[in-house]
Order: sequence, then structure tokens, then C-alpha cells
Amino acid sequence: MTVIEKAERARGASKVLASLSPEQRAKGLLFMADELEAGRLHILDANQEDLENADKAGITGPMRRRLALSETKIGMMAQALRQIGLLQDNLGKIVQMISRPNGLTIKKVRVPFGAIGVIYESRPNVTADAAGLCIKSGNAVILRGGTEALKTNTAIVAKLRTGLEKAGITPECIQYIDNPDRSEALTMMRLRGLIDVLIPRGGAGLIKATLENASIPVIETGTGNCHIYVDAAADREMARSIAMNAKLSNPAVCNAMETLLVHEGIAEALLPGLAQDLTDKGVEIRGCPRSREIVPYIEPATEEDWQEEYLDLVLAIKVVSGLDEAIEHIATYGTAHSEAIITADPDVAAKFTRAVDAAAVYVNASTRFTDGGEFGFGAEIGISTQKLHARGPMGINELTTYKYVIEGTGQVRQ
Amino acid sequence: MTVIEKAERARGASKVLASLSPEQRAKGLLFMADELEAGRLHILDANQEDLENADKAGITGPMRRRLALSETKIGMMAQALRQIGLLQDNLGKIVQMISRPNGLTIKKVRVPFGAIGVIYESRPNVTADAAGLCIKSGNAVILRGGTEALKTNTAIVAKLRTGLEKAGITPECIQYIDNPDRSEALTMMRLRGLIDVLIPRGGAGLIKATLENASIPVIETGTGNCHIYVDAAADREMARSIAMNAKLSNPAVCNAMETLLVHEGIAEALLPGLAQDLTDKGVEIRGCPRSREIVPYIEPATEEDWQEEYLDLVLAIKVVSGLDEAIEHIATYGTAHSEAIITADPDVAAKFTRAVDAAAVYVNASTRFTDGGEFGFGAEIGISTQKLHARGPMGINELTTYKYVIEGTGQVRQ
Repeated sequence: MTVIEKAERARGASKVLASLSPEQRAKGLLFMADELEAGRLHILDANQEDLENADKAGITGPMRRRLALSETKIGMMAQALRQIGLLQDNLGKIVQMISRPNGLTIKKVRVPFGAIGVIYESRPNVTADAAGLCIKSGNAVILRGGTEALKTNTAIVAKLRTGLEKAGITPECIQYIDNPDRSEALTMMRLRGLIDVLIPRGGAGLIKATLENASIPVIETGTGNCHIYVDAAADREMARSIAMNAKLSNPAVCNAMETLLVHEGIAEALLPGLAQDLTDKGVEIRGCPRSREIVPYIEPATEEDWQEEYLDLVLAIKVVSGLDEAIEHIATYGTAHSEAIITADPDVAAKFTRAVDAAAVYVNASTRFTDGGEFGFGAEIGISTQKLHARGPMGINELTTYKYVIEGTGQVRQ
Repeated sequence: MTVIEKAERARGASKVLASLSPEQRAKGLLFMADELEAGRLHILDANQEDLENADKAGITGPMRRRLALSETKIGMMAQALRQIGLLQDNLGKIVQMISRPNGLTIKKVRVPFGAIGVIYESRPNVTADAAGLCIKSGNAVILRGGTEALKTNTAIVAKLRTGLEKAGITPECIQYIDNPDRSEALTMMRLRGLIDVLIPRGGAGLIKATLENASIPVIETGTGNCHIYVDAAADREMARSIAMNAKLSNPAVCNAMETLLVHEGIAEALLPGLAQDLTDKGVEIRGCPRSREIVPYIEPATEEDWQEEYLDLVLAIKVVSGLDEAIEHIATYGTAHSEAIITADPDVAAKFTRAVDAAAVYVNASTRFTDGGEFGFGAEIGISTQKLHARGPMGINELTTYKYVIEGTGQVRQ
């Protein structure tokens, strides 16, 4: 079946899905979870095939690890679906009500988008997560995962579709583009009228290709060149603890700290101990000349270091003259993801949060909290780094839009 | 100056603009209005040049009329700016507040986009309206109007910039792309990191070109193939009055009715009189075979008639077997702009409003109300027909986004 035919089926199914009750959609999620668990051996077989192909292709390290499933991982995927099923369903709710002098009542009502496209890489759990979030929010979904996970993803989707069907919901709500040809992905990016929103989830290359080629609305996700600025008025122990957490708790993710900016008034007191602690944990530090005067064993940082999202145990450090230089550095190199200041001075904090243009701006907390679960959204389909529609973690509410329903008694416009 | 340099200046200025108080921005709007009025003779001179070039180019009819300014029209533009200045300023307001178990406070705060691009055609009043709405909502604006209005738009922008300057706001907040070369518009559509949102406002060709070429986020506006469905349970006089209003009050605009769908149970009672009334007002009617059995002088409608946005004194009429056929017709040919049902049956109305996927769905009212002013937004930069970010009339609130400001006391992620 072509990608257009799949998108047409998704579009048709989306109309049915949107008309279901919240209970029916929640039931769909539970049945999807049950089928995923019941079919785990089948999924693991498929995963084994993908892994063998990966080995032949010389795929190793983190990429192979992300691809590999286990019974435990499948159980976690099912559990995530059940949790999504329990989230509060806001479809059909009136967001705002306007009463006009001419007697018209204008209701702004929350509705699904219709059909959402998701293009993603390697990690097969995204298949279940994305499908679950879309179904819960009343949207049909057209998935296109990485070629290296094709058999695994196809097996997962088959189970999810069976689950929907057993719950009395048309399985056409979930479509998977199983043709690995890149032209299918390109076609998908241009299906105006069939796909309402496209969400790329993956590395910088995927995001860029989507933005370049798509003619349907895209939500940009992911790249996080995140900074923490330690102000002169910071609590040193708090600064140390937050910096360690933001760099070390999961260096491979987009909300990890990549550059530490330190006020010159606190640099000599903070940096020697912090650099030692980080180095002890295996972090390679690259610093500006002033930071290297304080900690001589730091490697020199180049222009590329300020730009790079390491996603690894590497950290850039820069000593700045104060808040203005920190704000300017973030404006130049930041990716509008997550930025933090550590300070005990509320005026400095207020200036930082006003001036820094990012999805999430923190005062005295780790950038690692930019996450749907940590925000209380339950789960997320990605972290938006654009400003249109949604910023930061996108949960089920961010996968909806609204329409105006206007009730009159025969009003005409003068 | 190149379009990139202008966008960079706008970007820089946007940071200053966002930091101003609501009173300062409101003052900017008042001064922009004053300068526009004070400079009216200069603007009219420039407009005269554009009109002479239009005459040489053989531009006549509605297009020439839209281009022509007068002292009265300039006064109305100034008045519109003053009204925008008085609108409630919601920047910095907390949209939502989340308290997390770990003690983090997450505030969702309304902020400007930054820099907004607006590409538009002919009507010079859009220059002042768009600039006013952007400045009021804290955004710098990069304008690119039609070549035929170049001198007029340049003159208007000069006055608006002077107004900003006199109000103590950097005039770089308003930029105008005065190079008529199409490559400048294309460059503008791809300025990632400099322009946050692009709003095309004009005919179908402009919208399509923008969607095809832009790599920055676009809000699609404008095309309105709007339907009114008269149910069997409709009040006939109400149906007649609304249909006349939706077709005749301003046929050239996107919220005018283009196709009338009539339930077969009311067609014989409604159509003869209504067709006569419309014909008396100069409307050309094209109908389906069943409508032509009832009103023999109606011209036959072709497939193109169901697709076309006439924007003129032309109306397509189709007799349908009931609600389902009406919903299906709208799903096939509608542009997700404004759709209406006339019925006294609340169950039928509820089914229609649920099933029809459009920015504005009306019960017993004219589609002509889809308008920022009529919705109480004060003014609008356009009518969105896409689902991402904003649907329907976009006022100053729709020209803003949000950021999360998270306050902690040293929290780190487990």
C-alpha cells in the first residue's frame, strides 16, 4: 500500500476516533498494552532479525543498545500505554466561552488534529509511545521509524492494531510506513490535507531534512544545547549539585547541560572543586582561557565547543563578566530548549528568566526536568524547540487543537 | 540593505520591544497613528505614483480600488492603530501554574514570538494593521507587500517607524522588504533563527508559494470555500435571511458563502423564493440536477463549482439527502474555514458541529461572523485555516507563544 493510501485510511479512521467517548479511547489503550505483552515473543523474534541485520551492518554501541528489546522493555512499553490511557481526556472541553453583544455564543472547543505523522529513529519504544499518545488524544497516526528497526516496529504496530480492533476501534487509526525507501518519507512530508502535523523525533539530520522538505506543518523537536549560568550570588553547593546532575544523570539526552557559564566573581571559588568532581566522573572539560587560568588541566575550548550538543561526557566551561554576557552567550549559541541560572538574588533571576528565550528557563534547578513526566503531563511525544503551537514537553494536550462553535438565533452580519 | 540584515535588525529590536512595559507599547501604537495622520499628504503622493504605475500596467477594477488610498482611508488606518493600542496586553501573564511534588513551581508565561514575517498583497492598510498588531503583541515585524503598492507601503512604514521613534521605541521593530525581486521573498521564507513565524495574507497563489518554499513555520490563512447547510428542520425565513447575508454582505471576502446545501425535505419550499431573491440581487446560481428541477432557470453546476472559492456574486446550490451527505460534501470540498447549519433541531446541530472539521462551525448564524472584530478580538492579522497554533481569526493573543519558567530551590533529577 502506498503512503498516500495509508494516509487516506488514517484520515478516514481519525473521524471515527474523534467521535468515540473518552472511555472507548482509554479502553483502546489498555487493549493495545495487553496485546503488546501477549505478543512479546513475536516482537522479540522480529527484534532478533533486526539485531542480526544490525550486526551484519556493523552497528554497535549505543545505537545497537537502543535497538535491542527485552521482555522487560516490552513490559515497560505496555505499562506506559496503560498510564497514557489513564490521563485526563480533555477532548470536547470548552477552553473559552465568549458571549457577544449580538447574542452569539462563541465556544472554543478542544478537538484532535486529525492525523499526525511521526518520523523517528531507532528506539522501538517510540512506536508504542507515539501511537498511544496520538490515539489517546483522538488522532490517527502515521508512523515512519528507522530502517534498522523495521521488523521490530512492524511487529509492534501489528499488536497495537490488534489491540485497537479488540477494543472495537478501527485499526486503521495506526499506520506504519514499512517501505524503507526514502521517497516514501519525502512523500509523507508533503501530504497536505491528509496529515495535519508532522513531528520528527531524532537526530539533527532528521530534523533538518524534515524542515527542508516538508510542506505540511512541522513541530521541530529535540536539539538541546543547554546552559547553566552560575551567578556571583549562587549557593556554591547548590551550583555544584545541579551542574553534576545536569551533566551526569543522562548525558545522552537533549536536556543535559552542554556548557557551564560561571560569573567571574565565583569562578575561583567554584571551579577547582567542581572541575575535579566532574573529571572524577569521567567528564572531559573544555574551557575558555580564564577558566584554564583557574583550572590548568582543562583543555582549551574552540568556537565549535560553544555550538556543539555533545550528548556525551564532555562539558564546555566559560567564565563570564556577568549576567549580560551570559544572556548574550545563550542567545548566540542556545537552541531555545532549556536554560538555567543558579542565584540567590531574585532580581538577577527575574532578569534572566525575562531575557532568555527558551522553552524552559530554570532558576535554581537542573535542566534535566524538561520532560513530560517531570512536568506532570504523564508522557510526551517530544520536546518542541520551536515557538509555534507548543514549546517544551508535548503531552496529549499539545496534540490537540481547537475549533470555534458559534451558536446563534438567526444572526446576520451588518 | 539585504533581507537578512533587516531580519537581524528586527531580531535585535524584538528583544528590546519584549522588555518594554504594556504602557510603552500602547504609547508606540498611539504615536504610530499620529504620524500616519500627520504624514497623510506624503502617503497620498506615494500612492498617486503607485496608481499611475498601475494605470500604465493596465491594472483596473477591484485591484486598483484596493490600492487607492484617501485621507479618509488613512484616517481609518490610524483609528485602527489606536484601537489596537487599547486592547488588553497579556504579555508576561501566567497562563498556567503547576506545582510539582518535588517543590518545583512551573509557570507557563505568555511571551511574544520574537520576529514575525508578513507577506501580503495590494491593500496598503494591511501594512499599518499588521505592524500595529505585531508591535502591540511585543513582536518585531518584517513586512513584504505587493510590488504594485511599493511606494505607498514604503511611505506608510516610514511614518510608522517615526511614530515608534518618537515614542522612544527603536524603529528597527518594523522592517519593510522594498526590493521587488522575488528572490528576496524566497530568502525571507527560509530565515530560520531570524523569523519565528511567517504569515502569508493574500490569494491562493501566494499562500501556495509560501507553503511550498518556506522552511520557517507558516500559518496558512485565507481560503474560504464556506458552506451553509439548511436542514429539514430549519426555520425557512431564518435560512433565507442568513443565506442572503452570507452571500451578499461582502461576496469578495473569505467568510462569504460559496455553496448552499439544502435538505431535500425543505428544498421545494425554500429554493424558489430564495433563488428569486438572490437572482434579483444579481447573484448567478449554479445548481445540481435536483435543484434545477425545482428552479429551472438555474445554470448546471460542474465539479469545479463545488471546489471554487468564487469571491463573487456566484453561488452553487446542491440538494442533499440529509445531514450525512452535507457533512460528507463539506469534508470533501471545504477549506476548514467557516461552515454553518440552519436547523431548529439541537441533536442535528450537535452532530453537525461535532463532525464538521473547520475553524468556525456555526449553528443558526451567518458565516460572515468569522472575523477578529466580530469575535471580540479587536482586530486580526488573518484567518488561520490550519490547525497548528491558531485556528480562525488571529488577534494579538494568537501572535504570542509561551515559555515555561521553573523555580526551584536546588532540585536535581533522580
